[in-house]
Amino acid sequence: MTADQIELVGYIAAACTTLCWLPQAVRTIRTKDTTAISLVTQCFFAIGITLWLIYGIALQSWPVIISNVVTLPLVLTVAFMKLRHG
Amino acid sequence: MTADQIELVGYIAAACTTLCWLPQAVRTIRTKDTTAISLVTQCFFAIGITLWLIYGIALQSWPVIISNVVTLPLVLTVAFMKLRHG
Repeated sequence: MTADQIELVGYIAAACTTLCWLPQAVRTIRTKDTTAISLVTQCFFAIGITLWLIYGIALQSWPVIISNVVTLPLVLTVAFMKLRHG
Repeated sequence: MTADQIELVGYIAAACTTLCWLPQAVRTIRTKDTTAISLVTQCFFAIGITLWLIYGIALQSWPVIISNVVTLPLVLTVAFMKLRHG
């Protein structure tokens, strides 16, 4: 693979693992159903995304910053709905 | 932050966003309840993790490879259970 191809794979990967949280957040807000969702998973995922954001800011890496700025509110929404609706 | 501190934050972030999928996979296998989980999210997350793995292999980046090798089977388990139990 060329450097350009590798970079492209990275951008598509980042888009997938970032934007994929939108349908989950929308579904959770709509249905208020969170029974199948693990609270431990959501909390540690939110903590992890926050740490990736700090890491991105420290390294001034825009791809890391943007990915995690988009993901964090979506994951926090699901975690908040889980805490509220159980 | 020093370079060592930034690296430590990155390792803790990677551990959180990787290992957090274990309780979700265990919960889904135990309860077979996947109603609250978005299939679109799980599928695009699995595709994204696969692309991150290809990216890590292409760059020979062991932290990226290890994180995604651990995450992929956990996410695929949840996606498979969702496809099977709806």
